[in-house]
Amino acid sequence: MQKKAVILFSGGLDSTTCVAIAKSKGYACYALSFDYGQKHRSELQAAKFLAEFMHLAEHKIVSLNLGTLAGSALTDKKMDVPDYTGNNEIPVTYVPARNTVFLSIALGWAEVIGAHDIFIGANDVDYSGYPDCRPEYLAAFEKMANLATKSGIEGARYTLHAPLIRLTKREIIQQGIQLGVNYGATLSCYRADAEGRACGTCDSCVYRRKGFIEAGVEDPTRYF
Amino acid sequence: MQKKAVILFSGGLDSTTCVAIAKSKGYACYALSFDYGQKHRSELQAAKFLAEFMHLAEHKIVSLNLGTLAGSALTDKKMDVPDYTGNNEIPVTYVPARNTVFLSIALGWAEVIGAHDIFIGANDVDYSGYPDCRPEYLAAFEKMANLATKSGIEGARYTLHAPLIRLTKREIIQQGIQLGVNYGATLSCYRADAEGRACGTCDSCVYRRKGFIEAGVEDPTRYF
Repeated sequence: MQKKAVILFSGGLDSTTCVAIAKSKGYACYALSFDYGQKHRSELQAAKFLAEFMHLAEHKIVSLNLGTLAGSALTDKKMDVPDYTGNNEIPVTYVPARNTVFLSIALGWAEVIGAHDIFIGANDVDYSGYPDCRPEYLAAFEKMANLATKSGIEGARYTLHAPLIRLTKREIIQQGIQLGVNYGATLSCYRADAEGRACGTCDSCVYRRKGFIEAGVEDPTRYF
Repeated sequence: MQKKAVILFSGGLDSTTCVAIAKSKGYACYALSFDYGQKHRSELQAAKFLAEFMHLAEHKIVSLNLGTLAGSALTDKKMDVPDYTGNNEIPVTYVPARNTVFLSIALGWAEVIGAHDIFIGANDVDYSGYPDCRPEYLAAFEKMANLATKSGIEGARYTLHAPLIRLTKREIIQQGIQLGVNYGATLSCYRADAEGRACGTCDSCVYRRKGFIEAGVEDPTRYF
């Protein structure tokens, strides 16, 4: 039987590449997206489209009103998403404990469907400001996951894969192009409009655009 | 300034006692409940009532459709909640990764409000079947939490408290009575009806009822 993997999937450049990598390793891909009160909800449309386009085994969107906890420019209507500044501080777009919450739900789904592999497109190079994208965090999550679950107690072993963790945006794009990723359909912008067009100036857009330039690949992004 | 604590709060016997313990230690209590597709949703009414009754600092209910992932008799309409059997297997009422998901969201809220203490009414005695109620799991979660967050990186230290972990139901009730817990308003039943009445025969009811008998306290539960 084909091995199953649960993959955190936002419809952005990184997670879509991560899905392509999991597919190339022979996994049946169970993609998991979240409607968590993000202002750039059109990323979910990109995720839906790509899940079909890439013939994934399943795609689920879990609703979760993290917005009620506030605290991030990505969910709090009173905070603006800033333009890229290039400083090294943890950005206001950081959502408290977001990867922990998403990975926990991925773990629950993995246990339900009998998957023992979880993929996350976390990256420690371009976004070094996010604490929950660091290898030591991911290792601690994996350890906790193996103590958290019924199947863990019964002898199963969960592995958390972060194949992009040490790659630059250029390397991610180069790997994705080799795997045939349809980057024109991915959406990374924190300020994306309802039609899925990108602003070109937020952190996420700036890193992405720079990655295409450095990879020598024409930027397929639709900007508004 | 009064220290803040985020407390997982279902409105049941254990978590309500846990809130009372946190209060008695001088914390401002931020109680967190989940509408996660549980069939016994009337526990949320109990939680709302108790949060006001106990004058908590704040009470939030986060919606999360874990039911779409299926896998537990507590959320899956096609599975029945069984009667108590007394065997030592992990029960079908186990919700995959539930405590991990709930604690992750508690961690996010803690970071937002500047709390560094998280309380969970997990208990390793009567419910030894749940993997995510064991001390080694909770220790691994705490370690992960301190790597997961912006404030963790900045030097804050999160502590995960599980004051009931080694107590029997009798001891929990005795401690709660001393703290003035209104047990008649708590709701533990997995099959509770819309009026908040309990079945008396599911695992949760059986342990609770036994606890009141052993504590020598009249059982204030409303059964249907």
